[in-house]
Order: sequence, then C-alpha cells, then structure tokens
Amino acid sequence: MLLETEPATATRSYEASSVGIVERQYAQFDTPLFLRSGAVLAPFTLAYETYGRLNADHSNAILICHALSGDAHVAGYSTGAPDNKPGWWDSAVGPGKIFDTDRFFVICSNVIGGCQGSTGPSSLAPDGQPYALRFPMVTIADMVQAQRHLIDHLGIDRLLAVGGGSMGGMQALEWAVEMPDRVGHVLFLASTPRSSAQHIAFNEAGRQAIYADPNWNGGNYYGGPAPANGLAVARMMAHITYMSETSLEHKFGRRLQTHPVLPYTLAEPEFAVESYLSYQGEKFVRRFDANSYLYITKAIDYFDIGADYGSLRAALARTTSDFLVVTFSSDWLYPAAHSADLVRTLEALGRNVEYRHIDAPFGHDSFLVEVDHMEQAVGSYLRHV
Amino acid sequence: MLLETEPATATRSYEASSVGIVERQYAQFDTPLFLRSGAVLAPFTLAYETYGRLNADHSNAILICHALSGDAHVAGYSTGAPDNKPGWWDSAVGPGKIFDTDRFFVICSNVIGGCQGSTGPSSLAPDGQPYALRFPMVTIADMVQAQRHLIDHLGIDRLLAVGGGSMGGMQALEWAVEMPDRVGHVLFLASTPRSSAQHIAFNEAGRQAIYADPNWNGGNYYGGPAPANGLAVARMMAHITYMSETSLEHKFGRRLQTHPVLPYTLAEPEFAVESYLSYQGEKFVRRFDANSYLYITKAIDYFDIGADYGSLRAALARTTSDFLVVTFSSDWLYPAAHSADLVRTLEALGRNVEYRHIDAPFGHDSFLVEVDHMEQAVGSYLRHV
Repeated sequence: MLLETEPATATRSYEASSVGIVERQYAQFDTPLFLRSGAVLAPFTLAYETYGRLNADHSNAILICHALSGDAHVAGYSTGAPDNKPGWWDSAVGPGKIFDTDRFFVICSNVIGGCQGSTGPSSLAPDGQPYALRFPMVTIADMVQAQRHLIDHLGIDRLLAVGGGSMGGMQALEWAVEMPDRVGHVLFLASTPRSSAQHIAFNEAGRQAIYADPNWNGGNYYGGPAPANGLAVARMMAHITYMSETSLEHKFGRRLQTHPVLPYTLAEPEFAVESYLSYQGEKFVRRFDANSYLYITKAIDYFDIGADYGSLRAALARTTSDFLVVTFSSDWLYPAAHSADLVRTLEALGRNVEYRHIDAPFGHDSFLVEVDHMEQAVGSYLRHV
Repeated sequence: MLLETEPATATRSYEASSVGIVERQYAQFDTPLFLRSGAVLAPFTLAYETYGRLNADHSNAILICHALSGDAHVAGYSTGAPDNKPGWWDSAVGPGKIFDTDRFFVICSNVIGGCQGSTGPSSLAPDGQPYALRFPMVTIADMVQAQRHLIDHLGIDRLLAVGGGSMGGMQALEWAVEMPDRVGHVLFLASTPRSSAQHIAFNEAGRQAIYADPNWNGGNYYGGPAPANGLAVARMMAHITYMSETSLEHKFGRRLQTHPVLPYTLAEPEFAVESYLSYQGEKFVRRFDANSYLYITKAIDYFDIGADYGSLRAALARTTSDFLVVTFSSDWLYPAAHSADLVRTLEALGRNVEYRHIDAPFGHDSFLVEVDHMEQAVGSYLRHV
C-alpha cells in the first residue's frame, strides 16, 4: 500500500489537491485539566493532525473543531486511520481548497471524551483499567481547555481562526468567549449558541437506546461485546436529523430496496431508506465507542454559551474576534434562527460579523457536503483574513 | 368506583359535556379478510365503542379513525379501559362538542393489527397460540376493509363522515377512494396522502429499537417479559416528532429536572425534557404491544394512496365525497405541503374541499390539543353537513 511505504513528506503523490499522507500525532499532558463539573482529569492525551506549515511568526494557524462523530483526521490519508479513507473534511482542507494548506497551518484534535486517540471513557485510567463511566463528564468548555494545552504545546499564541460545523462551531464560539485574545476569527457553521430542548430530547432518546442494550452493562463492556445494537439505533435516529425531508425524499423517496413490489415483511428492509439507515448504523458502530457517544452528546446538551455569564450578550461582550456565521435553509437540527440570535447580538456589540444563510437542501449535513457553497462562504472569507 | 357501579346509561353523571360511561363492544367476524399482501385473516374481531344514537334512517353516523397509538376509546369512561381515564379525544367528542353526540352517532374501532381488543399480533391464532410474527402484514386499506365489516354489522349503508388525524386521516382517505358511495364527508386532519422517506426512516429507527431488545426474541415474548426498553426508546423518539421545536422549548427549554445547577451525571435525567421523555416511554409500554407497534408503523409506511391506482389524481378521481382538510403550521411530521397536494388535486377534479391551515405551535399533536382551533375548523364544518 502506498500509504505504508511512502514517507509522510510525499504529500502530492495522491492528487494535487490532497494533503497526502498525514501523521496522527499524540500530545500527552500531565498538567491537570480542571473540568466544569469540578472534577479533574490527569493525565490526558490529545490525538491530533496538522496540515500545511506553521509560518515563521506562527500567525497562520487555523484550528478546526470536529462535530459529534468526527475525529482529528480532517484531510488526506492518515497513519492513524487504518481504513485508508480520506479525512472527514477532505473536500475543504488541502492545497487550494477552502482551508488552503499552501497558506494555512491547519490543526485538528480529537476532543476529550472521544474515542479516536484522545482520552475518553474507553481510555485506560491511571489504575490500568478503562475509565468507562468513571470518566468525568465533560463540556464544550473542557474540550476547548484541552485544545488550549495543545495550542500552547505547538507554540501558537494566537489562532488566526477557529472554526467548525455543528459541535465544532460550539467549540469555536467557546474559544472566542473564553480566550478572546487568542482567536482572530471564528467560523461558526451550522451550529447554535445554545442546545434546544428538541436537540436534548433527540440526544436523550439516543442515549436511552444505548442504555437499553444489555451489552452496555452500565458502561462496563470493554473486553466483552460492545452495545452495538443500541449505538446503531442511536446513530440511525440521529442520522435522520442530519438530513432533511427534502434530501431523504430526493435520495430515496419510496423506492424499494430489492423487490419490484412490496414484499410485505418484517424480515428484511423493504424501502431503500431503511437499508440506508441500517448501513449507517452498522458503519458507525465499527468506528465509535458507545460510552463516548454518551459523553459527547451530554457535552452538546450542556452547551449554552450565555449560561456561564448570565446572558448571551454578556458572554459575547467578552469576544474580540471577527465572525463568519453560516446557516443552511434546510438545517432543522440547528435552525438558522438560533444563529440569527447570535449574529444580532454580536452586531449590537459592534463586532465584525459576516452572516451567510445558504439555500441548500441537505439539512444539517450541508456544511459537509455543500462544497461549492462553502467555498463561496468560507473560502472567500478566509481569502480576506 | 363509579365506573363499576353505575349503569352504562348514566351518561351525564360525570359532567354535562361528557358522554359518560361507554361500553367497549366486540364484533366478531368469521368472513375472511383478504389482505393487500395476499394473505387472509380469519376469523377476526374488532373492538369498538359508539357514542350518541343512530337515527331512524341511519344517516347520522360518523366513523372516527384513530392514529398509531390510539384505540376505540375516544370519549367518556370506558368499560374496556381499566385506568378509568377519559378517551383520547374526549375534548372533541360529546354533547355539544366538535363531534356533537346529541346529533351524531359516533363510532370508533381499534384497527386490526392493534392491541386494544381488535385482532393483532398479540391475539390468539386459531391454533390457540399468540400470532406474534405469524400475524400477516396489514395496510391502511386492510384496516378500512375490516371497518367496513363493522359498519355493515351496524346496519349503516353510508357514513355521514369518516375522519381522523394522522393515521386516522389516512384511513378516512382510503374509505373515500375505495368505497366512495359509502362516505359523505372526509375529515382529513394533520395527515398525508403518502408516507415520506423521512417518516419511513423515523418509523424504521423505532422498529430497530424494538428488534434490538433481547426480550423481543423474534416477536415471541408473550408469556415472558416484553421488550419494554426497546418499545420505550421507539416511543421516546416518535414522541419528539409529534411535538415541535417551539412547543418543546416553551414547555421545557433547558430547565433542569431536580437540581438547582447541573449535576453533571449520566445516572439520572438532568434536564426536564429528558424526564418527560422517559415518562412518555414508560407510560406507553404499559398500554401498548411492541409487535403491534411494528405492524402499525409498517402499515403507515406502506401508505401511498396514489400507488394502487397509478397516480394520486387517478385515486382521487374515484371519490365522490366532500373534504375538510386541516393542517398545522408547526407539524413537521406531516407538513402542510403534503396536504396541499391533496387539496390541489381534489380541486382540479372538481370536488368540494374546505382547506384550513392553522397557525399553531404544538406540532403534529396540534390536532389533539388545539381544541379551540379544531372547534372552529372541524366543529363549524360539521354544523353545516
């Protein structure tokens, strides 16, 4: 395999616009991480990848923050991703792409609580056993404080930009509020300043699906069978919320999976959309830890940037960065109205805000799949920073 | 208990607007029911209740069709409902109410495939064992054909109206298309002429939650523990789709359930909306059979009134009844656009159609909870039939 024999510097061997082979790196910290819950996590590890080169004055760094099911592997082909698949935002990160790695030094780390190399419930605790539910609850603020250790470690005082979609946008906003002097620009994409009751409800239904799987066993399943059925159900349900009625209708409609006419049976998927959901569930359980799913959805639920400061306005008054806010017309998980609140408040505070509302049919996932629109919105914004 | 000691004729003992105590009745049919799948169901039983009196020329009968989780107990206090709770649409059915039982003879039967007295997967098959998954798949058309036997049995040639919300509206539409000479008016409320890919997807995620429960055991759980956890997860998820983002936000927002500040734990519900969902799940599993949930959601998925006739227009060309179509602005499960298609096609065919789009925040459940709006829409319509 090319991936295993070529050195990491053979960046352009795949295609001109790919970052090529990327090394998964691990930063280990003995300094304790003081969590919002009052608990302390120590030591902890962050898995991360970088793309492009940090310039001489360390002023071209962009931190990309991943969403619920993401990881540090944003682009190219990673030594830490055994499936040899391109990163989750390969369309956006690379030479000449939206996040142009000929210009920017792009960083992405797996969140704490995750399961892709950073310390999380599946990691070994200091006693040599997996944390499981002994892992402390984490928040978006905690994820960001862990990232701050990494940015310090990389010798970067100030990030040119921090950005991400969905939960990634929450982290970017948290950076700008908590550490305003370290963030130049926030890219807040298909996200929300505050998880709504509906979003908490969907996350809770997914968690209950995991709890209901007997293999979950109170979180103590490492070394035995994982609660794959429960996690798959959680993913199936969540996946529906990432799409839109229109995109599901366009992609599947009422098309049957196998038979020319309805077989009328419970024994197999009858409609194509059923088969697609099963596939999404199965694919997810191969790469994701159920306990991490519990912890990260909780962190999303906890997110309310105004709560720690008394109000959204009071929180945002701390920021000094510029903002790009992007919403999508068909995103019903994080409706545009949530971001519009953010934009109005930032504008009232005199911040520089560029707001792009994109008419796109792909629901919440639009930020990942609407490459042309994202190029026009995010790419053009970044060309002028 | 009043319910057990008072005779069924003491109608007004509760309150003037209640139908009082109602007797659950059972109609047993030996005639085979030929199902869309090609299978035959025989014998079969329909549980039903009636309210008001059938007039001399049998011209004042209204059939109400229930939704996914409903039953025959629409109004008053039923001998067949051991919890002594008023029927699921008590607000709408009674003396002087929307379905005025001083004027109309109102009928409601539990659908076949159900679990509230009509023949379904939890019923005993002719061999004396529960059907479980040996029960044949049923469709909305099959439910309606079973109801037709009941209407014949009651000596009613022509229903003044057939109506219902959600899956109830599907049945009403099916009546008008399949047996046009037997239906005067269709009340099509918060429903759709065709289940969308998104709706099939949500139903399938719920079914997968049931399949994932080891107590489900391929459907063979009667006599043992029921797959309550799986069914509760399915219900929790579905319940979110019955409400709206706005109504969830208004009712719960980010309010905590017990503690003044976030406890940061997986061990108990933290947000009020989580506790509410659990309550909905627990309440549901006490009254509903998991296999029935599988069969009825499948019947909903199968529903596409145009499919059997080549097109929506060809199906609707068979109808001769008048129509009242009601949609709700916040119903995202059955968006108004689906009903608008129906209305346009009916109007193009020259049918009398009254279409009311109601601005209401309660999502799909609006048809049950928006009593004042329903009075204005359905009540005023029925006063003129």
